[in-house]
Parts: sequence; C-alpha cells; structure tokens
Amino acid sequence: MPNQYFAIIVAGGSGKRMHSSIPKQFLLLNGKPILMHTIEKFHKSSYHPEIVLVLSESDIELWHELTKKHQFSIPHKIVPGGAERFFSVKNGLAILDDLASQEESAIVAIHDAVRPLVSISTIDRSYETAKKHGNAVTAVASRDSVRLQNQNGNQSVSRENVYLIQTPQTFNYKQLKQAYLNKYNTNFTDDASVVEASGYSIFIEEGDQFNIKITFPEDIIFAESFLKLNEK
Amino acid sequence: MPNQYFAIIVAGGSGKRMHSSIPKQFLLLNGKPILMHTIEKFHKSSYHPEIVLVLSESDIELWHELTKKHQFSIPHKIVPGGAERFFSVKNGLAILDDLASQEESAIVAIHDAVRPLVSISTIDRSYETAKKHGNAVTAVASRDSVRLQNQNGNQSVSRENVYLIQTPQTFNYKQLKQAYLNKYNTNFTDDASVVEASGYSIFIEEGDQFNIKITFPEDIIFAESFLKLNEK
Repeated sequence: MPNQYFAIIVAGGSGKRMHSSIPKQFLLLNGKPILMHTIEKFHKSSYHPEIVLVLSESDIELWHELTKKHQFSIPHKIVPGGAERFFSVKNGLAILDDLASQEESAIVAIHDAVRPLVSISTIDRSYETAKKHGNAVTAVASRDSVRLQNQNGNQSVSRENVYLIQTPQTFNYKQLKQAYLNKYNTNFTDDASVVEASGYSIFIEEGDQFNIKITFPEDIIFAESFLKLNEK
Repeated sequence: MPNQYFAIIVAGGSGKRMHSSIPKQFLLLNGKPILMHTIEKFHKSSYHPEIVLVLSESDIELWHELTKKHQFSIPHKIVPGGAERFFSVKNGLAILDDLASQEESAIVAIHDAVRPLVSISTIDRSYETAKKHGNAVTAVASRDSVRLQNQNGNQSVSRENVYLIQTPQTFNYKQLKQAYLNKYNTNFTDDASVVEASGYSIFIEEGDQFNIKITFPEDIIFAESFLKLNEK
C-alpha cells in the first residue's frame, strides 16, 4: 500500500550564528549530526512517514559523505532547496505528487532539520490532529510575560493568548499544495502563515517545551544533556 | 554616602514543577544554591546595589542554614514575602524607605531569584537605562514564530513586535513606589504591568537569550553547562 504519511525535513540553514563554517544541521550532537537525530525521530513515529529531505544543493555531497561515515541507513528522498524556506518547502512538496497515492487523504508534516529534540509522541499527535482537523501546528506557551509593540509603544498582553510556534507543522496535502501556489511573501515565516494566507484556520497542537531550534553554541550543550537525560 | 542603587531579589517559588520538595531557588547549581548565584551577579554589578532578598517566611530558617553551610557572605537584607509576587515586591519596597537616602534619584532593580544566568552587563545596562528613562525592562525577541489567540481563532503576528519579558526590571524608586499603591490585580504578572497600570510607558532593554527562569529539571542541566562554559 503506498504511503499516506510524509515528513518534509527542511535543512536550509547556514552556520553563521554558530560561528561555524559547516551548516548547523551537520554539527555533531553526542557524536552524530543533528540532522540524523531529527530524521530518526520521524522514522520512529508510529505513522511510519516517508521522509523527504530538502538540502541546499551545495550540501548534498557532504550529506552523502556523512551518511556513509555514520552508516546512516534510514531511507529518505533528497530534494535540492531554494533561496528561501518557502521555496525549499515548495520543492519538497513537488515530488509528493509522484509519491502520494491519494492526494485527498495524504498528510504531510514539515519539520525544521535543526529541531532534533522533538518527541515522537508530538510527531504522532500532529499527524493524528492534522488528519482530523486538516492541520496541526505545534506550539508552546511562553514561559515569560509578553509585551507587544504597537504604534503607541508597547503593552502587556495576556500570556495565555500567545503561542510560540514550533515544528512539526502538519497538514492535509491538498490544503498545503493549494497554499504553496501563493506568491512568495516575506511574512511567510513558517508553513502555518502560508496556509493561513489561503484562508484556512490554523489548529494549534501542544508542542514540547524543549523542542528548540538549535541556533547558538549553548543550544548544542543543552541538546546533548537533554538527549542523555531522556535516553536514560 | 548612602546607596542609591537597590536590587530586590524575589524568591517566592515552590518546587512543584521540579518534582522537588525544596523550593527551586535552593536547588544546587554546580554545588551551590541557585539563589546564591543570582545574588552574586548583582553583587558584581558596577552599581554595587544594596541587596534586599524577599523570602517566604517558612524558608528563612533554611536560608540561614544554607548561608552558613556555603559560607555565603554577601550582605543582604531579608524581608518576608506575601501570598502573591505583587505582595512580595511590595514588602521589599517597604523597607527601602529607611534605606534610600534620596527617593527622587534611587533606582531599584527587581529580579527573579530563579534567573541565575543573567549577565552582569545586562544588570548594569538596566540600571543605566532606568536612570535615564525612568525604567528598563529586559526582554528578548522570540526565536520562534508567534501566533496570537483572538475571538476568531489565532493569527500570526510579526515576530519583531513581540517581546519576551525577563528580569531585571528596573525602575526609578518613586515611580515604582507609586505603582505599588495600585490595588492588586491578577493581570499583574510582573513589575512592568504594575507600573504600566499607573500610566507610565515601559522602556524595553535588550536582555540575555539564556537568562531563563529555572523551572524544569532540564533547566538545571542547561544552567550547569552554561555556567561552566561561561566561567571558562
């Protein structure tokens, strides 16, 4: 039976904020590239998604070398990325036409390559919720008070009304495909904003407090400790 | 010359989310209670603030034992806390009347006991900015996309307009004293919201990305690594 569940892992990042010359998705976390940890999480989902990896054209050779070196054997398709995240996701979606047997019922999770700490249960819930409601965008509450800038300065806002958005962001394939026909807009900071621009309501799903986007060197230290603690 | 700079360290928390029976400000970070790390940071500020520590009545004895055990010698005044953070800060402020020589020019930083990772430069900048603008509330940008709940569901908001608020929150003493005459309101989640309710504009000062509020066991692991990295 052809697969109805997909995961598009988007790895377009550079190493700028890491003061590193290699893109951060390839940095080692307990001896293994971040990206491999991320792919493993989706591979372990009980929905067994087919995995599509979007990589910068210039990183594909390095990735092949790394998979050999680390004997990484989880099957995945590789698609070259675009200049902006929007175009990378669009490229990832393009190949699903050949893979998804039934467009109407296929479900696609989109995930940042540099969020390796996502829990498998969150991945599973996002597929489940997207299947039921058309989409599921994972988010956590802010741990801090929040203020919003407006024309008159800044004002406090009730923390309960604020969602800090993570990935996975999971959608019915048809909804997502339609949304990515939109013309690119710099306000498209994530997939939820693209889908919202097509008129769909966004369904928020509880994410993981520690499913951080690895950005700073301190994040690597945290992620290593976190994985060790959670593997115990 | 009597001091014009003060720090009120608010330590009212319980250990619930830590699955710990001792309040989290007393948990050990690299062998020393979190609260001692926090007080040390203010002690090292170039403004040499006089330190006022607000503690639950029931924790004062334990704190005295801990200071003996760890030979903690940084001078500080101890004030018993109230049922809500608002009342704890109010109790802290009450003793400043006797300490502040010149009410007009005294500057008061308020800080969460469980934010030991604050940088000394951020503390210094918050005193400097509050002196200039009347107040300085430290904040960082969100690393994630943000959505806001409203009556019609939730909508994406530009990340640049969102401030995640931390402490220190630093104020002209007169401004703060006036604000704390307000009647308690459950919307008062921090000092900025209390001062804002008195009609003052809030001045945002750049905080530290990793000045987290120690809340979960994972935070301790991170904080230990962070301190070790930064002490190098």
